[in-house]
Amino acid sequence: MNTRIAYLLAGVATLAGIIVVGIAALGTGRADEQSGRAYVTTIPPGYRDWKFISVAHEEANFNSFAAVLGNDVAIKAYREGKLPFPDGAIIAALHYRHTPSEENNKVFGQAQSFVAGPPTNIQFMVKDSKKYSATGGWGFAHFQDGKPADEAFMKPCFPCHNQAKATDLIFTRYAP
Amino acid sequence: MNTRIAYLLAGVATLAGIIVVGIAALGTGRADEQSGRAYVTTIPPGYRDWKFISVAHEEANFNSFAAVLGNDVAIKAYREGKLPFPDGAIIAALHYRHTPSEENNKVFGQAQSFVAGPPTNIQFMVKDSKKYSATGGWGFAHFQDGKPADEAFMKPCFPCHNQAKATDLIFTRYAP
Repeated sequence: MNTRIAYLLAGVATLAGIIVVGIAALGTGRADEQSGRAYVTTIPPGYRDWKFISVAHEEANFNSFAAVLGNDVAIKAYREGKLPFPDGAIIAALHYRHTPSEENNKVFGQAQSFVAGPPTNIQFMVKDSKKYSATGGWGFAHFQDGKPADEAFMKPCFPCHNQAKATDLIFTRYAP
Repeated sequence: MNTRIAYLLAGVATLAGIIVVGIAALGTGRADEQSGRAYVTTIPPGYRDWKFISVAHEEANFNSFAAVLGNDVAIKAYREGKLPFPDGAIIAALHYRHTPSEENNKVFGQAQSFVAGPPTNIQFMVKDSKKYSATGGWGFAHFQDGKPADEAFMKPCFPCHNQAKATDLIFTRYAP
């Protein structure tokens, strides 16, 4: 083959390759948005220092404690009684085993005392009404041992929280 | 009576009165220290913004949730694993009724969910190893509806907490 034609064919092939890859990448992005995938995979920094919102205790499958904390935007909204939560609000639910405390029970003289046992998972809800418009304005997150859950795991978050429309999808009330 | 003698007697009487009142006041002070009365009657300002330490749930008589928060000195000591707590550390226990959540139970489809109900009381432990030397270095506090409990109510605090000598009289562990 003529060398110049060879180079020309190589160049066209390369260009075609680049165009194909580019289209594929764009296609994936659109699919993401269309599928409504909207969950958070990075732990918001500094969450352990956030202010206290409330506590909860779940029996049954969970058998757990939740300590609910909020960043300053979330806390401010709670204290002002302001719904919906503004963009930038982040609420964290730190989960632990609901564990009997032998030491406390000895002191009380009877079995009555439960404390936060081993941590089980940390969940977040991140408010961004544009980015997460498909899921009520909230991006959901679940981390176990620092690792984010996968998409299948995260699917039930929104439909369940969507039953709390009256309180902007947030079940937890502020504890005075 | 001679006017000058009258005035002289009045002056002596007044002086005597002042001395008596002064001795009485001093006497009360010494009696306080000797009786070991060491409890806190002013709510430490800003406690609601303190960082989160842990949660607890007491069944039996209390039927309550505790959210344990700490000021920066306390949090730092916890995170450094440092005992005893340094002077200036303050730990707050915010107590609420352990209340079933109808709304949550509807969503879960079964009775399993308990949340912080009405607040019941707020308790504090304030570290000052000199001022509270008679009670292990800690001043105890209990407030209900913003009002401090009386001395009789506060009497059991120290003997109970003194059963946690190994952890500087603090039962609550830091939740990661």
